[in-house]
Amino acid sequence: MMTTSHLEQEILEQPEAVQRLLDAEKSTIRSALAPLRPHFDYVLIAARGTSDNAARYAQYLLQNRCAIPVMLAAPSVFSIYAQKPDLRGALAVGISQSGQSPDVVSVLAAAREQGRPTLALTNDLASPLAAQADLVLGLHTGPELAVAATKTYTASLAALALLSYGLSGNRADLQSIERLPEMLEATLQATLARSELIERYRFMNLGLTIGRGYNYATACEIALKVMELNSLAMLSYSSADFLHGPVGILRKDFPVFVVAHSGPMLEPTLQMMRQCRKLGADVTAISDSRKALALADAALEVPAGVPEWLSPLTDVLPGQVLGWKLAELRGLDVDQPKGLSKVTETL
Amino acid sequence: MMTTSHLEQEILEQPEAVQRLLDAEKSTIRSALAPLRPHFDYVLIAARGTSDNAARYAQYLLQNRCAIPVMLAAPSVFSIYAQKPDLRGALAVGISQSGQSPDVVSVLAAAREQGRPTLALTNDLASPLAAQADLVLGLHTGPELAVAATKTYTASLAALALLSYGLSGNRADLQSIERLPEMLEATLQATLARSELIERYRFMNLGLTIGRGYNYATACEIALKVMELNSLAMLSYSSADFLHGPVGILRKDFPVFVVAHSGPMLEPTLQMMRQCRKLGADVTAISDSRKALALADAALEVPAGVPEWLSPLTDVLPGQVLGWKLAELRGLDVDQPKGLSKVTETL
Repeated sequence: MMTTSHLEQEILEQPEAVQRLLDAEKSTIRSALAPLRPHFDYVLIAARGTSDNAARYAQYLLQNRCAIPVMLAAPSVFSIYAQKPDLRGALAVGISQSGQSPDVVSVLAAAREQGRPTLALTNDLASPLAAQADLVLGLHTGPELAVAATKTYTASLAALALLSYGLSGNRADLQSIERLPEMLEATLQATLARSELIERYRFMNLGLTIGRGYNYATACEIALKVMELNSLAMLSYSSADFLHGPVGILRKDFPVFVVAHSGPMLEPTLQMMRQCRKLGADVTAISDSRKALALADAALEVPAGVPEWLSPLTDVLPGQVLGWKLAELRGLDVDQPKGLSKVTETL
Repeated sequence: MMTTSHLEQEILEQPEAVQRLLDAEKSTIRSALAPLRPHFDYVLIAARGTSDNAARYAQYLLQNRCAIPVMLAAPSVFSIYAQKPDLRGALAVGISQSGQSPDVVSVLAAAREQGRPTLALTNDLASPLAAQADLVLGLHTGPELAVAATKTYTASLAALALLSYGLSGNRADLQSIERLPEMLEATLQATLARSELIERYRFMNLGLTIGRGYNYATACEIALKVMELNSLAMLSYSSADFLHGPVGILRKDFPVFVVAHSGPMLEPTLQMMRQCRKLGADVTAISDSRKALALADAALEVPAGVPEWLSPLTDVLPGQVLGWKLAELRGLDVDQPKGLSKVTETL
């Protein structure tokens, strides 16, 4: 009999982990952020890998819901090139499960040296990253033992959603956030109930994920998860960037996974799906929309009722399950994929 | 006999095109930018496709050489989501060959509406993008007829280098910039003299480009060019992000193209090359460094003497030639690749 992997446990634990985070942080987030808000014009985020995909979510979240521009840092400017960009106007935010990567820490350290406010989202409150932060938002997931990050990703997104509520002060947003654990659970159950679908990807040797807006992050994270767990090359693009060049790679039966959530981005995404199908690609929809699901060759349905701005939390789950189940089908070690370690320190 | 393609003409014309740009813009750039400088804390860049790779160069250029933070815009925030982030502190810059893409134009329009200074880098001084700009920096390349952008890319980089000089006022920088046409010519000649090497990629069906810092842009643009011209999937990563997950996809004979230019980024890049070789990958170096060239399975040498901060202009040329010659070997139409059009308008 197969023993349960850490990866499986951690994927299934996500509703609970997000609940823990909300219980711990939701009541203090507004008062913690209020004193910071008058002191910055934009948010500068430093992150790598999975956390960088969380940063991509923040780009849409804080710009769309709080009108705050978001800059993704180029950490090597601070580390390898040892430069000190003038950060006036910035709130520096570091996102890192371990809080260890020196390049990410260097961005917060530089901001702090210039007297800028700093914030860390991390699972380790005693990490070097936390030490550079005026304010630490813990992820509260408990230890993550599988190398591929899953629960710390959804917890980072939930922490960012709380951050957005803390900055906007919109009470209705908090109510939507509070429904997340239940929506995550419903999505996991729906995905697991139909996971035999994943057999059809058994012989996929290259794939592409597409998402735009809030779910560009989801497309990137699904590609990363499938790549990490299956040692399989996956491209990821926003549909707009894909049309500006890479679209020519599509050919008959090219596997394309499209995240198509209801909202202002649905119509352009449906157009993209039609174009992919016209070129003969095999299109899988990850979607809450009947229209999108009907248009696809294969459907990974997510439950209705999650607003687009929170949908990256639910819509990534079918992608995590895809990465996990596909690796199991292929007889791979899902907890310790080839060539990876849990904490990657880059300068 | 084969007629000369537009692509070939435009690749070979680049030294001349950059010279035209310098002649037209270098004497006025400082006085044009001086009145703007006190009015912004950071630069917000909107761009798509090849121009977005130019924006990646600007990220390192303006942060490292002018201490000005650079934010890459998420254009759909302004277009599809119709939001108005508060852009106080921003200088908005649009980069677009055609100046037509509505999403890129929407970012400059939003900035202008808020009274923020705006700047356009475009080949078409009568374009909608130029119409939204306080200041227009022309690319002066003349018409670009091949669908895959080459001369407008290097011209965009040269315009950004001038912008950096205009903001820093460092005269020595201008002298380095003035040597660019000669260095571009030397790189093209060196590459063309050894282009029979490109036959070894005849049966490549998936590849990866790696660069970091200034040449992350080069890695992205080479991947895009090979992809556009050959309908061939190419991944591109900064070496730091590659180590945070995707590294597991490397296997024996996986084709990896590494841009390794002399400077602070060389040592970490050599380490990355060693790691790729250890995993059995086939490593091609695009480099001016003996060490990097000696470490590789195949070498695309670029002439010594180009400072790292200007090297994205020269180091992309072997990649353009790779895309072009490989497509010719494969009997593809290099001027009109499958599925693409010259002007892509995304909302």
